[in-house]
Amino acid sequence: MIDYRSDNTGRAAPQILEALLRANHDTALGYGGDEWTASLQQRFSELFETAVRVFPVATGTAANALALASLGPSWGIVYCSEVAHINTAEANATGFFGGGTKLAAIGGEHGKIDVDLLAEALAGISPAQLHRGRPIAVSLTQATDLGAVYMLDEIRAVAEVAKRRGLKLHMDGARFANAVARLGCSPAEPTWRSGIDIMSFGATKNGGALCDAIVVFSPDLADGLAVQLRRAGQVWSKMRFASAQLIAYVENGLWLEMAGASNRIAARIAVGLRDIPAVRLLAPVEANEIFLELPSTAMDALEADGFQFYRRSSTLARFVCRFDTTEAEAAR
Amino acid sequence: MIDYRSDNTGRAAPQILEALLRANHDTALGYGGDEWTASLQQRFSELFETAVRVFPVATGTAANALALASLGPSWGIVYCSEVAHINTAEANATGFFGGGTKLAAIGGEHGKIDVDLLAEALAGISPAQLHRGRPIAVSLTQATDLGAVYMLDEIRAVAEVAKRRGLKLHMDGARFANAVARLGCSPAEPTWRSGIDIMSFGATKNGGALCDAIVVFSPDLADGLAVQLRRAGQVWSKMRFASAQLIAYVENGLWLEMAGASNRIAARIAVGLRDIPAVRLLAPVEANEIFLELPSTAMDALEADGFQFYRRSSTLARFVCRFDTTEAEAAR
Amino acid sequence: MIDYRSDNTGRAAPQILEALLRANHDTALGYGGDEWTASLQQRFSELFETAVRVFPVATGTAANALALASLGPSWGIVYCSEVAHINTAEANATGFFGGGTKLAAIGGEHGKIDVDLLAEALAGISPAQLHRGRPIAVSLTQATDLGAVYMLDEIRAVAEVAKRRGLKLHMDGARFANAVARLGCSPAEPTWRSGIDIMSFGATKNGGALCDAIVVFSPDLADGLAVQLRRAGQVWSKMRFASAQLIAYVENGLWLEMAGASNRIAARIAVGLRDIPAVRLLAPVEANEIFLELPSTAMDALEADGFQFYRRSSTLARFVCRFDTTEAEAAR
Amino acid sequence: MIDYRSDNTGRAAPQILEALLRANHDTALGYGGDEWTASLQQRFSELFETAVRVFPVATGTAANALALASLGPSWGIVYCSEVAHINTAEANATGFFGGGTKLAAIGGEHGKIDVDLLAEALAGISPAQLHRGRPIAVSLTQATDLGAVYMLDEIRAVAEVAKRRGLKLHMDGARFANAVARLGCSPAEPTWRSGIDIMSFGATKNGGALCDAIVVFSPDLADGLAVQLRRAGQVWSKMRFASAQLIAYVENGLWLEMAGASNRIAARIAVGLRDIPAVRLLAPVEANEIFLELPSTAMDALEADGFQFYRRSSTLARFVCRFDTTEAEAAR
Repeated sequence: MIDYRSDNTGRAAPQILEALLRANHDTALGYGGDEWTASLQQRFSELFETAVRVFPVATGTAANALALASLGPSWGIVYCSEVAHINTAEANATGFFGGGTKLAAIGGEHGKIDVDLLAEALAGISPAQLHRGRPIAVSLTQATDLGAVYMLDEIRAVAEVAKRRGLKLHMDGARFANAVARLGCSPAEPTWRSGIDIMSFGATKNGGALCDAIVVFSPDLADGLAVQLRRAGQVWSKMRFASAQLIAYVENGLWLEMAGASNRIAARIAVGLRDIPAVRLLAPVEANEIFLELPSTAMDALEADGFQFYRRSSTLARFVCRFDTTEAEAAR
Repeated sequence: MIDYRSDNTGRAAPQILEALLRANHDTALGYGGDEWTASLQQRFSELFETAVRVFPVATGTAANALALASLGPSWGIVYCSEVAHINTAEANATGFFGGGTKLAAIGGEHGKIDVDLLAEALAGISPAQLHRGRPIAVSLTQATDLGAVYMLDEIRAVAEVAKRRGLKLHMDGARFANAVARLGCSPAEPTWRSGIDIMSFGATKNGGALCDAIVVFSPDLADGLAVQLRRAGQVWSKMRFASAQLIAYVENGLWLEMAGASNRIAARIAVGLRDIPAVRLLAPVEANEIFLELPSTAMDALEADGFQFYRRSSTLARFVCRFDTTEAEAAR
Repeated sequence: MIDYRSDNTGRAAPQILEALLRANHDTALGYGGDEWTASLQQRFSELFETAVRVFPVATGTAANALALASLGPSWGIVYCSEVAHINTAEANATGFFGGGTKLAAIGGEHGKIDVDLLAEALAGISPAQLHRGRPIAVSLTQATDLGAVYMLDEIRAVAEVAKRRGLKLHMDGARFANAVARLGCSPAEPTWRSGIDIMSFGATKNGGALCDAIVVFSPDLADGLAVQLRRAGQVWSKMRFASAQLIAYVENGLWLEMAGASNRIAARIAVGLRDIPAVRLLAPVEANEIFLELPSTAMDALEADGFQFYRRSSTLARFVCRFDTTEAEAAR
Repeated sequence: MIDYRSDNTGRAAPQILEALLRANHDTALGYGGDEWTASLQQRFSELFETAVRVFPVATGTAANALALASLGPSWGIVYCSEVAHINTAEANATGFFGGGTKLAAIGGEHGKIDVDLLAEALAGISPAQLHRGRPIAVSLTQATDLGAVYMLDEIRAVAEVAKRRGLKLHMDGARFANAVARLGCSPAEPTWRSGIDIMSFGATKNGGALCDAIVVFSPDLADGLAVQLRRAGQVWSKMRFASAQLIAYVENGLWLEMAGASNRIAARIAVGLRDIPAVRLLAPVEANEIFLELPSTAMDALEADGFQFYRRSSTLARFVCRFDTTEAEAAR
């Protein structure tokens, strides 16, 4: 069997689990009052070249929904791509944690938010139209849910429209490592230097084990979030075991190394697909995911050959490469 | 320094972290579709001598609040001890996850719910009094938040009053292992055989690392809870790493061994305190916690001697023993 | 000025306000324990030819959101037309009262739900896909938000698809009177006899003053709703003044007489528009609303002539007839 | 029968219903865009001697819960008297509208908040104790739920403690008229001049019919509240009929005249009770409510004599005087 189902079916990087073992000595204050969590703040602040607050959380859904809930009142509207994970795959966690926050889907190519459509949607709600709710934030998925990557100027164009209206910016970075590896820039560039106020920093899909994180760039958001996280059951009492994972994840560039590996495998496969007339890429392969339009019979044949992948529809298949997907598997 | 601050300042049992490493091979379906999670269902069903559904969650707060939210509508009232963790220490997670669920505190000795006071409180709200809300559940903390343990007949007396009114029963088992070790009975006895519908099964405080669990005894509660957990950001995509911890936790009786150890240390200390006239136990030491009334100057002296513990008030101190608190530390 | 802005800009029927005065004698038990509210139950049960529970509420938004919240858990998905008031104009009250309920918009002609698109949407979420949420209900707007009216077989086709999946049916009847007047049938036909479980029964837009109602056809929904209404601040302590309005509203067929009047005015205008080449009706005029595509300059001219109406876009105008819009105004 | 059950069993003042009839002409913009609602803002601003925002709402529960929800995040704690209506009689509307806001009950005499107990409760939660939630507001009931009235210096003492901690102040003025009539001062004194940020302005219990109001003294609270009210189903589309009631209520001092009348009746009864040895007043009779401790047999006898009142317990009865309770009824 060759598993292209998801990057969450994979192993964790051994370095991350070893970090757990190394953290297992002596006693340490609970709920994040430990030295690992303090160190995590420092490492991520160095990584992002600015003072950030980092909150480890159990899942990407928690990261997204709690980050978004920190951005405005419960009657807020959050704009996102129509294929965004928060809109299609989190059982409306955003609505739940936000107390009735509404998601408004914006079209666009390759899972990106079309900046003109966003501007049009915002123009359609004047501040006096109370019955429409209140626009509060835009959420960008980087890399997108179709495997593409926002260029810096694309993020900034969205940010400009959003900020003009006083909106906050969230980045769903479930595959942020893949995007940074692709862009080849500092993590600061596609985030706070482009206007992002808060982000979901994914690790699980890229060799992590049991935690992701919320990274806060706008300091005024952090204190309220800290209480909300506690109440949301997202603050481990033995936090050191979460912080240690995240430290190991970024230590010595491990995260970008793993993301680079899965990106390369995906790119290699994409190249190989070019010459197959029956298949078509739904979006450019810029990270570690491949969305392929192909006949249903072709999917059957692939499964018969031992390939595992998700069928999104009768003619759309998703293949995801992991940090440890091998060249041999790609060649197949 | 001798650390009696909390059982969450401690290490994890090495067996639990090693289980993580052992689970780190091959690919496995995400979100609980893996073989470890399937195995977890079976192990816990054997442990509890009945078919249960087990949902690993990140924290005890998540376990409590989500379990309680599954027991009735958002206008429900949940009865608990006035010193219950859900009432004093979870930033009203129950109110949040329940959509406005109200906690009603009931008095009683040693952190237990007084069954007569409970009956009186329930009698005070007739079903026709819509403005009072609707009683839906009782939550018992076992071991209690003051270090005592409910006897089986005490649980059953509460259950009888609750069930007569159609209420569901929840057990906050953050220190369930300590209670079972003390009672020396099957885990089935103080739970479903005594009327418990759903429980928060704690592991973290007793040598666990990064997960606790919700154990569902009333099958009709499980399906809705499964969606709610997903939406609550409590379903790890790499669930195997959570399930493996919980399997290791109960394997070969590890959980009861660790709980027995911390109970014994606490009991030993309690015996030693008997002859000190200036101190008084707030509740019998039946698990691993010691609540001590003593002069503020005595607390100062203990701290000066290198003891770490929490001051609950100017005359009340809490000392918590861990599975790896040593005899030498106890002797001190 | 000739006011076609909305049916909520109009007067109340004098009979309804006079009923308030008539109810203002003696004392009466609060919160619905009065004789008017008891009488209301009976009148509406006669009207609908089945035993119903009627709950007066302040607004249509309250009626919709609270009715929908009674239909399932907070992780539910409610399907509605993409132009439904609940989706476009209630600041996501459904999400708020439901604790994070998600609205899913379904396309269709003239503000109706296309039954095939609904079936397709439901087929797209298998019960095992927890991350997608759980379909719980369909909400039909009758008359629709574009001024059309569902025929009985259209409602039943939607109901059949919904019930097959175990969904509940809600009707937003903000303009239910207009629909019934148009259909010329018993109010029972387009509601419970067509599968509707609960409805928002509008009065305000059709000559009412300060209340609408929730009418419950499925008895098991009523008890919970009664508590929720209390908690939602929708239970007047002097309920007699609300119930008296609703009794007067249906007394001697007043509601259908008023709806018939506004429908006739709208129909008359629609006939007059047929011969004007520059304008196009967006939907058939089957109730009291006219949605007109016309050049922006034509709108300017109408306003200059003293007509008041809402511009939905630069080329779409809405004209609404009230029960007391005169023939002379229509002729203009 | 002589009805002392509640002030909500009574009639409405004829002037208030007549105002409805007078408002029933021409068309008017919906949702508060009408001239009556504009006039209401002005009248209340004059009444309170400062610029206020007034939002009519259907019920006191809506007023309380929505006002409190505007005062801070969902993880907030609101302090109130243990007998406060918000704590005992609104089915936890505060928790619901606040998204999990917690009520913390503070003891005190006669339904007032004891300022020392409040200070102690606040001192018990340091800002660093995230697990305790975050204190955000204090709610004072004026007149209290036991029929007493806060003196100005009592309100200010509470305000001082609250403001020192950065808390907001809410007043539940379900019987505000009775308190003002008793104090004989400007409505400004016990409200914003004493630190109140927002209040529930009751009318229903004092001769009103179908609406109460939220009065906002701190301008920054109003804009968000306006959206929340819309979403909460508390914004009537024909708002003129609500605003007209509230204007009539305060016109020519009607509200204070009615409150003065019910206060006088209550005072007269209290004087008469002085010489009856078997009964004891639970609190001084300073408004229109009388809480009487008396033998159960005495209650039986009163009922046999045709008196209607509420039994709060086997030895506690509540008698409420209305604006139209007669001297003859009092003499009885």
